[in-house]
Formats: sequence, C-alpha cells, structure tokens
Amino acid sequence: MLARLKAHIARIDPLSPALAKSGQAHLDDLTKPQGSLGRLEELALKLYMIQEGNPPKADPAIIYACAGDHGVVAEGVSTYPQEVTRQMVQNFLEGGAGINAISRVAGTELLVVDAGCQGGEFPPHPGLISAKVAPGTANMAKGPAMTREQCLKALLLGIELADKAKAEGFACLGTGDMGIGNTTPSTALYSAYLGIAPEILTGPGTGLNAEGVKHKAEVIRRCLEVNRQAVASADSLAILAALGGLEIACLAGLILGGAANRLMVLVDGFISTASFVAAWKLCPVVDQYCVFSHGSAEPGHKAVLEALGVKPVLDLGLRLGEGTGSALALLILRSAAAVFNEMATFSQAGVSTKSA
Amino acid sequence: MLARLKAHIARIDPLSPALAKSGQAHLDDLTKPQGSLGRLEELALKLYMIQEGNPPKADPAIIYACAGDHGVVAEGVSTYPQEVTRQMVQNFLEGGAGINAISRVAGTELLVVDAGCQGGEFPPHPGLISAKVAPGTANMAKGPAMTREQCLKALLLGIELADKAKAEGFACLGTGDMGIGNTTPSTALYSAYLGIAPEILTGPGTGLNAEGVKHKAEVIRRCLEVNRQAVASADSLAILAALGGLEIACLAGLILGGAANRLMVLVDGFISTASFVAAWKLCPVVDQYCVFSHGSAEPGHKAVLEALGVKPVLDLGLRLGEGTGSALALLILRSAAAVFNEMATFSQAGVSTKSA
Repeated sequence: MLARLKAHIARIDPLSPALAKSGQAHLDDLTKPQGSLGRLEELALKLYMIQEGNPPKADPAIIYACAGDHGVVAEGVSTYPQEVTRQMVQNFLEGGAGINAISRVAGTELLVVDAGCQGGEFPPHPGLISAKVAPGTANMAKGPAMTREQCLKALLLGIELADKAKAEGFACLGTGDMGIGNTTPSTALYSAYLGIAPEILTGPGTGLNAEGVKHKAEVIRRCLEVNRQAVASADSLAILAALGGLEIACLAGLILGGAANRLMVLVDGFISTASFVAAWKLCPVVDQYCVFSHGSAEPGHKAVLEALGVKPVLDLGLRLGEGTGSALALLILRSAAAVFNEMATFSQAGVSTKSA
Repeated sequence: MLARLKAHIARIDPLSPALAKSGQAHLDDLTKPQGSLGRLEELALKLYMIQEGNPPKADPAIIYACAGDHGVVAEGVSTYPQEVTRQMVQNFLEGGAGINAISRVAGTELLVVDAGCQGGEFPPHPGLISAKVAPGTANMAKGPAMTREQCLKALLLGIELADKAKAEGFACLGTGDMGIGNTTPSTALYSAYLGIAPEILTGPGTGLNAEGVKHKAEVIRRCLEVNRQAVASADSLAILAALGGLEIACLAGLILGGAANRLMVLVDGFISTASFVAAWKLCPVVDQYCVFSHGSAEPGHKAVLEALGVKPVLDLGLRLGEGTGSALALLILRSAAAVFNEMATFSQAGVSTKSA
C-alpha cells in the first residue's frame, strides 16, 4: 500500500509560473482598477493555474463529508456522547444538518463517507459511501490511534474518492468531517507536525468549559507522550497513524488525490486543516491546490493558519465542521471564476484607462 | 421635501427584542453545538427580526447601483478621468462589469440608477432608472457639493427606490455605487460626521500614489474648511449636501427607505458606508436593518467600521464598489436563512444533546 501511496504522490505536479503571468495579465485587463477585486482575483488565478490555463471553473463541485469515531473519547474530551457521530451521519443522509442546508444553497454535491464510524454498516443510501476502514480508532492516550496499515488504507480511500470525482467531471473538491472528539486528534497532529504546544492550541471543541479544556490539553499531552516514538520519528505517516483519525486520514488522502488530479481543494476548518498538514508533510506541493475556506472559531486554528502562513477566505466564527466552510467558500470561488470569465476588458467596453 | 423626508423617517421602527429571544431559541434547538454557526446565526437572527418573526428570506434581493459625478474631480483627486463614470454605467448596462458577473452568480436583480451623472440622459434601457437630480455635483473644494434641495431630492429618490422594491416583493436590498472621485466626498463625510481627521482616512481610491494621496487629503481638508459652516452646524442634512454626492445621498435614502419598509439592507463598501453614516445620523435606528457586507481594502474603511463598532461579513480585500460586496454578502445571508429554515432540530433528527 505504501508503494501505491507513493505512486499517487508522484503524480502531483507544481503549478506553472508562466500561467501566473498570463492569468494576471488577463485579470489586469478587465474593467476595474488593477487588483481591486482582491482575493477574488487571487482565487480566480489559482483556479486558472490549477486548470492549466483554461477558463476557470468552480463547478461542478463535490464535498465529501468523512466520518469516523475516536477511541480517545473515553478520556472525556467531548461534551457530546460518541453515538452522536452515527446520529449525525444519519442526519446528513436525511438532509437535516448544517452542511445539507448550506450545500443546497451552494449548489454542491454532497457525499457522506463512513471512513470509520463505530458499530456496523449503515443501511445503503445513495448519499453514502460505506468504506469503513475500522469501527473507530483505538484510544491514542494508550497507544497509536491506528495501525500503519489502517492509516494507509484510509489515505488510499481518500485518494480514490478524488479519483472518482475527477472521473465524474467535478472541477473542485471540498473537505468535510464528522467525528465526535476529533478536535483532540487534530490538535495532537498540529502539535506533532508543527511543534506548537498543545496548551496553546487546545480549545473547547463543541463546548467544553475552562476545566474541560485544561483536561483535554492534558490528555493530548499524554497522547503525545505515549506516542513519543512516532512523534520523534519525523515519519509523517507514523505520526498520522499514531495521532490521527480515520476520517482525518481519509481527508488527507482526498487532499493528496485532489492535487494528483489537478482539482482545487477547499479545505474546511479545524479538523480539515489537520488533514491538510498531514497531506502537506507527505507532499509539500499540495498547498498549491488548496484554499483555506474559513478561519475557525476553535481558537487554535488561528495559530495554525499563521504558522502555515495562509489566510482563509472567510472569517465567520464557524466551528461546526461538516464541510460548512467549504460550501460557503465555494460561493466565493464561483464568483471569482465569473469575474475572470465574464467581465469585459477596457477595450471591449470602451472604458478609458488610468490617466497616470 | 423636508416634511416628506421626516415622514419617511417616522416610519422606521426599532426591532422587537422579544423576537431576538424566540429566534435564538430556534437556532439553539438545531442540530449543531450552540453558536457553532457563528455569524450565520447572527445574520439569520437579524433577518428573522426584521421580517417580524417569519421564516427569514434573503430572496428575492435587488442591488441598486447608483451613479453620480463629482465636481471635486477638477482638483485632481482620481487617477481615472471623469468620463469613466458614464462609460462604466454603459458597461453595467451591457453586463460586462464586476457587479454584473457577481450579481449573476448571486442571483440578485441589478438596477442601475443615474442619480447624477454628467452629461445628458442615457438612452432608455430596462436595467436603467434615469433619475438624474443634477448633472454631477459642484466642486466642494469651492463651496457646497449640492444645494439642500438637490440633496433632499436625491435622498427621496433613494427612498422611492426602496418603496418600489418593497412593492415588487423584494426581501433584501443591496447598495452599490459608481462615481469617479467618490472616495473624496465619502472621506469628507466621515471626517465631518465622525470627527476623524482626513489624513487618517484618505486612501488611494482607484490607485493614487503616495503623493496623490497626500494631495487628496489636502483637498479634503480644504473642502471641510470651505464648508466649515455646514460641518459645524451638526445639521446632518447640511453636511450631506455640502460634502456628499448625488449617488451617495441617493444610497443614504435607499438605506432609510429600506428600514422604513422593513427590508434588510446590505451595505457595500467604502462609499456605501458613508451613505450609511449619513442615514444613521438622520435616524440612528437604521443600523438595526443594515449589514456591513465587507471590509474594504481602501484603508480608511477599517477605522470607520471600528468607530461604528461593527464587523463586516466579508474581508476579501475588495475596493471596487459597484455593489460587489453586497452581492457576495447576499450569498452568505442566503446560507444563513437556509440554516434557520432547513436544519433539523435535535428531537426531529433523534440526535443526543450535550451531556454536560
């Protein structure tokens, strides 16, 4: 499986700097002061470069909401009981969750992926991909969350989802997550990959009080300690296996697969950014294919985005996950593509240019 | 005309605090951790309150892009020649401007209003409202930009546009502007209304260099000095007449009219916020009906929004005006309404609530 992962990663190419020039020249010729559409121009240019100089298309887009459970919930790191992961997957399939409402507005396809929910298989549903790697992770406060094999399997699942999206003609991917307790592995991954102390990054997740946050940071500290061999190894895969989650690894694979297929990837919030960091450690060039949808209200996200040197598209105080930020950012991305493709140039419109 | 303006202002009611409670209770019952949809919840609640407790609707929405020319352009405050205002109005009508591309994506109606462009009438066009109050303002570096009568006429025009939108069944209004040189009157209005020094607020507009910005600040200082009687009068209408613009006054009227008709108003960027300040000085309760669409890259906007104590929905480095920020914010507002109306409650979805 490692060879297969490496083969996929080898497919990822950096974007062509020549396209940055031609795309910017086009944007500068449109009837507006140069640069006056700010980040819309930046997004349109990125899409143009990813799509190899064709008129940039944000659509069709698909969000994969990947679900998994976490053994570390046994340590009391979440205010919601573990069964909520399954219940929310069901809610997604019935169309009643936040991501359903927003992805309908955004006009994006939504597929729910059981990458590792506790319990048995869900009943078949057209909106569900049943691809359970394992029924939840092990408690990473006592050992690695996943075996190396499980982690590879989840990564390859994500890559397959990207391949499938490409084959079906999608232009953009969005990441989304569902997994009670998954701010804990995400925070542990940030600490291990970026060297930021868990005490700085740990936040309330779905709603812990100050005491709960303190306990959670202690649990994360213990997870790092128990898995210190992986953490010290500088082996990105070993770190992901030790401290990640099945949905987190699946989303890391989705990001790698998106880049391998020249699809733009809209990275959702706190959890998805942890998947991004894992993917980026495996293949640094993936950042050229990714857009950070929003800055999460989960306090550690800001520090992480700063450490990565990136600025999210939106800052709406969201902390829900599910892909809600990706769906909202798609609306902005679609506007950016329309600006690039539909605006008149100065000469077409007979508008005078700057005098000075 | 003043009596008519006062009668419209008297129609504006504050929102009911009881609705804040019932709306928040509904949001808190939806299948998500409380508050986890951040500003989407805030926007949905505002819409619910404006719409008197009915399921909030962002649609249908209409943007009025109001155009006018500015005599102060003779002082060399813009990099683009004055004729560009007319040329851009034509570009709007032909569908080639930024606002056209983005409002198509946003699914909003767009009407262009000639509130005060130089030259004669535009040829009739279904997308144009010809309502020229005067062919541009006078040079406010030498005297008042408008007579009190012209200013009142432009305000009443904006109110009529809001009345018309209400009568046609629109749920939301967006503001947009076009007027070469109009960052200069906007900055002068901020200085006069909010007491912020023009040197702090003056920015490059469509692209002045540092020397140009310095000159522009000096011109604005001169405008304030020449019109010191109006500035010192604390008469909001006199200040708007002296330092405003025909499109700026029209948009101030649109904001007042929106509030009078219980329509949410999406306030665009730097210019539209100046219209908001004028409207707010005339009737402080209008802020309950307004949403600040985006923080402009025009540097003074940040200081103004801070002085007003408001946070814009988007921060995308835009500085184009035209209503582009309003159209983008509508996409977020529509998502907010969908969250309120379409998400399942915990009991409906059979999802367990917080344990602690």
